[in-house]
This record gives sequence, C-alpha cells and structure tokens, in this order.
Amino acid sequence: MKRAATILSVPSLIARKRDGGELPDDAIRALIAGAVAGTIPEYQIAALLMAIVWRGMTARELGAWLRAMIASGDRIRLDDVAGRKVDKHSTGGVGDKISICLAPLVAACGVPVPMMAGRALGHTGGTIDKLEAIPGLRTALAPAEFRRVLRRTGLVLAGQSRRLVPADRLLYALRDATATVESIPLIASSILSKKIAEGADALVMDVKVGAGAFLRSRAEARALARTLVSLGRGEGLEVVALLTDMEQPLGAEIGNACEVREAIDVLGGGGPPDTRALTVRLGAEMLVRGRAARDAADGARRIEAAIASGAGLERLARCIELQGGDPRVVERPEALLPRARRQVAVLAPRAGTLQRIDAGAVGRAATVLGAGRLRKEDRVDPAVGITLHHKAGERVARGQPLATLWYGDGPRRDAALPLLRAAFTIGAGQPRRTPLVLETIG
Amino acid sequence: MKRAATILSVPSLIARKRDGGELPDDAIRALIAGAVAGTIPEYQIAALLMAIVWRGMTARELGAWLRAMIASGDRIRLDDVAGRKVDKHSTGGVGDKISICLAPLVAACGVPVPMMAGRALGHTGGTIDKLEAIPGLRTALAPAEFRRVLRRTGLVLAGQSRRLVPADRLLYALRDATATVESIPLIASSILSKKIAEGADALVMDVKVGAGAFLRSRAEARALARTLVSLGRGEGLEVVALLTDMEQPLGAEIGNACEVREAIDVLGGGGPPDTRALTVRLGAEMLVRGRAARDAADGARRIEAAIASGAGLERLARCIELQGGDPRVVERPEALLPRARRQVAVLAPRAGTLQRIDAGAVGRAATVLGAGRLRKEDRVDPAVGITLHHKAGERVARGQPLATLWYGDGPRRDAALPLLRAAFTIGAGQPRRTPLVLETIG
Repeated sequence: MKRAATILSVPSLIARKRDGGELPDDAIRALIAGAVAGTIPEYQIAALLMAIVWRGMTARELGAWLRAMIASGDRIRLDDVAGRKVDKHSTGGVGDKISICLAPLVAACGVPVPMMAGRALGHTGGTIDKLEAIPGLRTALAPAEFRRVLRRTGLVLAGQSRRLVPADRLLYALRDATATVESIPLIASSILSKKIAEGADALVMDVKVGAGAFLRSRAEARALARTLVSLGRGEGLEVVALLTDMEQPLGAEIGNACEVREAIDVLGGGGPPDTRALTVRLGAEMLVRGRAARDAADGARRIEAAIASGAGLERLARCIELQGGDPRVVERPEALLPRARRQVAVLAPRAGTLQRIDAGAVGRAATVLGAGRLRKEDRVDPAVGITLHHKAGERVARGQPLATLWYGDGPRRDAALPLLRAAFTIGAGQPRRTPLVLETIG
Repeated sequence: MKRAATILSVPSLIARKRDGGELPDDAIRALIAGAVAGTIPEYQIAALLMAIVWRGMTARELGAWLRAMIASGDRIRLDDVAGRKVDKHSTGGVGDKISICLAPLVAACGVPVPMMAGRALGHTGGTIDKLEAIPGLRTALAPAEFRRVLRRTGLVLAGQSRRLVPADRLLYALRDATATVESIPLIASSILSKKIAEGADALVMDVKVGAGAFLRSRAEARALARTLVSLGRGEGLEVVALLTDMEQPLGAEIGNACEVREAIDVLGGGGPPDTRALTVRLGAEMLVRGRAARDAADGARRIEAAIASGAGLERLARCIELQGGDPRVVERPEALLPRARRQVAVLAPRAGTLQRIDAGAVGRAATVLGAGRLRKEDRVDPAVGITLHHKAGERVARGQPLATLWYGDGPRRDAALPLLRAAFTIGAGQPRRTPLVLETIG
C-alpha cells in the first residue's frame, strides 16, 4: 500500500475523477487506506468526495470502493451459524419500528438475522435509540457476544461496532460536514460495506420514498435500489430492494419507547394495519432470501403464523434478555417502558378528510421534542413521542384529537407543537391512495 | 463576521453551491474570512472549491468572492504616485520574459507600473525567478519600499507580499493539492485580487493559448479573458486581455539568466522579432490604459521611441539599482549574469522545415534542467537554460543545431535532452502561421 501511495499523485487522481474519468482499483485502495491511516489529508478526500457527487462512479470503481471500505476493518465470520444470514436495512423514515418486530419473526421462522442498526440523525429515527428505551438493554456487543446471541436466539440487535468498516465512520463524518452525503454510490457503498462486514449473506432493503424520507423522488429511490442490488450481487451479497411509501409516518407511534410498544403490539397480533402489513411483506422477502420459504406468499403465511403463535414475541424476549435487558417488557410494555408524564393533544381545526400527514414535519416535531438528534452529540429522551390518532384518508370532526404529544418540558413542547400542527392537511374529497410498497427491485 | 459565521451553516452553503444555487454576499465573506482565520476547516473549503469548479460562480458571487479575498489582507495605497497605475500580467508561458523589458519602457513613457510578479511552477517560468538571476537584486519589498522605488523610477518589480491577499495564498495551496486550480472564476479572482490590492488602476492581461500555456484551447482562454474584463470592470479595475500564441516558446531564450539577457537585448533595440513585437503591442495597450497614448498605434510609436532612445534600458538599470542589484548588468549582461559552463547542442535529425516547436515540451525540458520547479519547494538554477536557434517555419539542414542546452550536471542534462528533442517536428511544406496576438478582448 505504501508503494502505491508513493506512485500515485493524489491531486492527479482527484483531477481524473473531476474530469469524469475512471479511477483504477489500486488507486481506490490507496485512497481509502490513506484516508483511514491519516496519510492523505482530509481536504483531499473532501475534494474527491465532491468530485464523486458530481461525476458518480462506474460499477467497477464502486466495487473497488466497497471492497476497500470493507478491508479497512474487521469482518465478522458467521460460518458457525447455520443457514443463510439475512439482514434488513431501511434508508430511514418516521415511525419506522419495523426492524424490532421483523427480526424476531424471521428468526422464529428459522432464518438467522445478524442485525447491526444505526442511531437517529435529522428527522428520522434510529433502531438503536429505540432499543435503548428498553431498560438494561445493551447494543454495544463485541464480536464474540454478537455471534453468541445470534446462535442462541437466531437474531441479534446490535449497534455499529467501531472495529467494522472504520472507513465508513471517517467518510461519513467528512461527508456530513462537506455536503457530500447525497451521492447514490457513496450511500450504497456505505450501507453494503457494513452489511457484508457483519457477515450477512442476503439483505432486504427498505428504500423509503416521500416527504419523510431521505430520498424525496421515486426516480432517486429507484436509482439507489438498482445500485444496491447490482453492487451487492457483484460482491456476493444477495440484495432485494422494496421502495415503500414515506409520505405519512408508518403506524401510529413516533418516538423511541412509543415505537417499541407498537412493535410489541405487532408481535402480539395487533398494531396498526400498515406496520403489520409491511412487517409481513419484508419478512416474507427475508424468508425467501434465507431459503425458508418457496415464494413471497409462502413467506407471508409463515410470518403470519409466527405472529399468531407468539413465536416472534418469545424470540424478542430471549434476545432482549441475552443482551442484558428486561424480557418482561414484551408482556408489560406500558409498565416497563418509559412514557413522558405530560401530554397535549393537537385538535382538528375544522371538519373534513385528512388529506395528508407530512412525515417530514412529524419527524421534525419529534426531533425537536427530544426523540431524535439535530446534531450527532445530542442525547435522545426515550420517553417523549407522538401518537397519531388518524391516518390520511380518514374523516375527522372539528375539535377531534389528531395527535397526542408526550413531552418532558414546556419549551420543547412549544417548539414541537407548531411543527406538528402544520403536518396535517384537512380538506374535502378523498386523497389519492398510494400503496405502501411501490416497487420491488432485484 | 463572527455573527455571520454563527448564523451560517457551512455544509448548507456547500450544498447550495453543489446544487447550482447562488451564495449570498455575506456567506461568501464569512467563508473566506473563516478560511483565513482557520475557523472553517480546510476540508470544507476543499469541498466548496470542487463545487465551484463544478458549478462556477455568477457575476454577483464572483464580485463578492473577489472583494472578500482583497479584504483578507492589506492594500497598497498609491495615491501619492501621480497618474494611472497600469500593470501587466501573463497567465504563464515558456520563454516569456516580456515583463522585464515591458515595465521599464512603459515607465519611460510616463505610466507608473507597480508590478508584483510570481515564481515558476510547472513548465512555465516566473518573472521573480528571472529577476533574481541579477546579482544582488531583491524582490521582497515592504510596502514603503515598493512605493519608493515606484515613485523614483516609475516602475517596481516585486514579488508577492505576504501581507497582500493572504486568502489567495491559502486558497491557491489548497487548490493545488485538491485539483481545483482549473476554474475560470477561481483563476480570475486570484489574479485580480492581487492586482487590485497592489494599487493598479488598469491591467493588461496576456492570456496565453496553446501547447505551452495553462489553457490549451482558445475557447477557454476567451472565457477567462471575458471574465477578467467584466470582473475587473465591476471592481473599478480597467482590464484589457490579449489572447496570444503559446504554441512555440516566445523568443529564443528559455531559462532565468538567459531570459534576462534577451529582455536586455530587446531594450537595446535587438532581440527576436516576436519578443520585440509583443513587447511593443502590450506596451501600447498599457500606454492607452494609462492615458499616455491616444490609441494603440500612438502607443506603439512611443514604445518604439523609448527603445530607440535607450530610455527603457536606463529605467531598468535605475530600478535594479534601487532594488539592490548591480545596474551594470544592462551594459554587460554576458559578463555579469550567470551562465552554465557546459553546453550540448540538439541537432536536426534530418533536413526539412521546422513544423513545430512544442512549447510545453521545451518548458518541461527547462524545468527538468533546473530552470523551473516541479514542486513549490524546489530551488531554481539561474544559470541553466535553452537557446533555440530556429523558429517554426524555418528550413534546417540535417545535423544543423536546433537548440543549445546550457546545463549544470549530467543527470539533469540526460533527463532534459529527450524532452527537448521531442519538442521539434521537422517535415515538408510550410506550417500554418498563427499570428502572435490572436484576439483582443475588453
């Protein structure tokens, strides 16, 4: 690597990308390794990242970039866990607690789920913050513990290990500070590097589209989905991507403990129809990729059965217990999960049909309330949140509660309320119904 | 400025430029000031620079950018120097010693020339390196000395002051390391910031085009010329830009002391026709901008007269003396300027007509020989150089010397010789003649 770094002139490599050229594999390896080792200054990496946002990457470059990222750290070997390991990842939405009910159901159907999840940033929530609302639960697991929990329960719900893909942490921090996050190849390689390093054989991607999603347009979401599928395939990771609607929040609950409660409801056979439906659909795809179902219909039946039998709920309890949490939370969520004491309702200002609940606005209200992070160093409050009492398309009377806001202190409530109020549009007529799953790619 | 920096989010400003938007004036001021103060990290500036290479700048943005650069340091006040101060700047060529004969002639015609020049980098030479071939001459002048030399001789030939436009030094170093040099607005603002800060009222730009120039195509050169003219006009600096040919080197001499000798020849009424012609043409434009000539033809006559009378040569001697150099160099250049002892001739491999002398190749040969710099920290050797014995279009016999290479040590000679040999193309028929001045803009 040292030899390569002396041969290559970093400015000439940046210039090649700037001019729309293709970088050779050894140059990409040297750039990533130099960035992680600190031998290439951050300003050169920043200029390269902006040139990549501008010019994109060819499939060949992107494969080399992904492999170089994975090679920057450890890889978890899951050869001693039988079966095809299947993970699920979402590009981030509002009220998206699916991972918490999905992983135990898939594990209960015999497919191991080695899940490494992220934290909230911006208006979207993070599975790790949600899980940490469960008293005692640890998500920082060493590789040996990660494997042990997976072997014993068929799932594991962990945070990102610092030893896996250090290049991604470095690049992500730099991208966040230099407005170079918005690049399909950089997003795709960031996601897949961690999934491959954690030992997954297949990945079901939930690519969110709409007002509450990172990607607003279906065209962008489709481009990301296609890149994920082809990039994964090239590196031996089977990827299927579902484009799903994120115009309105998923389910009724937004906020960390609130969402864990709703996920437990789904595992218990209840929960809002959209959350349950998406859980079943994604679970079915995971079972197919894990060779535990013939097709999606067969997979859906198996997931439904794991809900009906309580097998999913039991798996979640065992996983929570092995990760240091209180397993009784699945039986008595209302008693054992934190809930902000104070509440205020948002009332319908007039009668009509709910045309729209802007997921972005709801997400920002929840973030301001303390459920999410405006900056990486912010702490989240597990107890605060928002409960929606209606979904788009439903009729409401004037003065009827649209949402309940669970809050800790007055100033945050006052900052969140106008954002939440502005999320609702009431009008005449029925809004256009968009299906929950817009498209399947891969 | 502190207030502005706290209001503005740097990543969101980079994102605006990345997406093709326009940055407000106060944002540009805060970005430049923050870069110079070190409160904005270099990686954010680097990403911004690449976004500017990508998206360009509007006229409004570029004006604000230029003003912010000037505001980063001191400005030299030349109110006590009578008349319009006129400078000349070249984008850099091979064998371009024009400034050294031009400035004394224009001063002799009554127009003050406050010249701040640069050093060699890459295959192009730098006026300051050339001047330093004169024994004793100092080019690092404090503002008071700069003014004094200018008042007493009508010209001053100084290097860049560290106190003028520190933003340019910082940005240029970063651009050099991040492949963001090639941007018309960044090039234009870099040039004009220094000219405005040095106190010039007007500027004659020599934009070189061709194999030995920074800009290879006429379209790019024209775009830079137009930007220089309009940007200068907006900030009260009158700019006229001449696009001039740099396919073959200018004159016969390349290398620092060699070029000073040729400039002295021109002032003495001799020198190669192209070097003399361009001196007269640029001088005429400077006299017009300095209100010392009615038009270009009148200006040319006055410059010719200053050559014929020896007034130009006398001005150069006085300027050299005031800057600590030996003024007798203008009378006995061969005795007082260094010259490498060893020489080797490049012979014509066959008879024919010189179709082409590639200025880029000659410049690279001179750089390898030690006349220029491959890296900023390299030292130049004033004594080495190349003398061309023919120009394109001339007939040569087999074995006739095409050039003499003056060298210090064998390894450098051996590295330079093949580059120099490859610069010559001999063939049948007459090559297309391109005029020396291709276009005048402004």
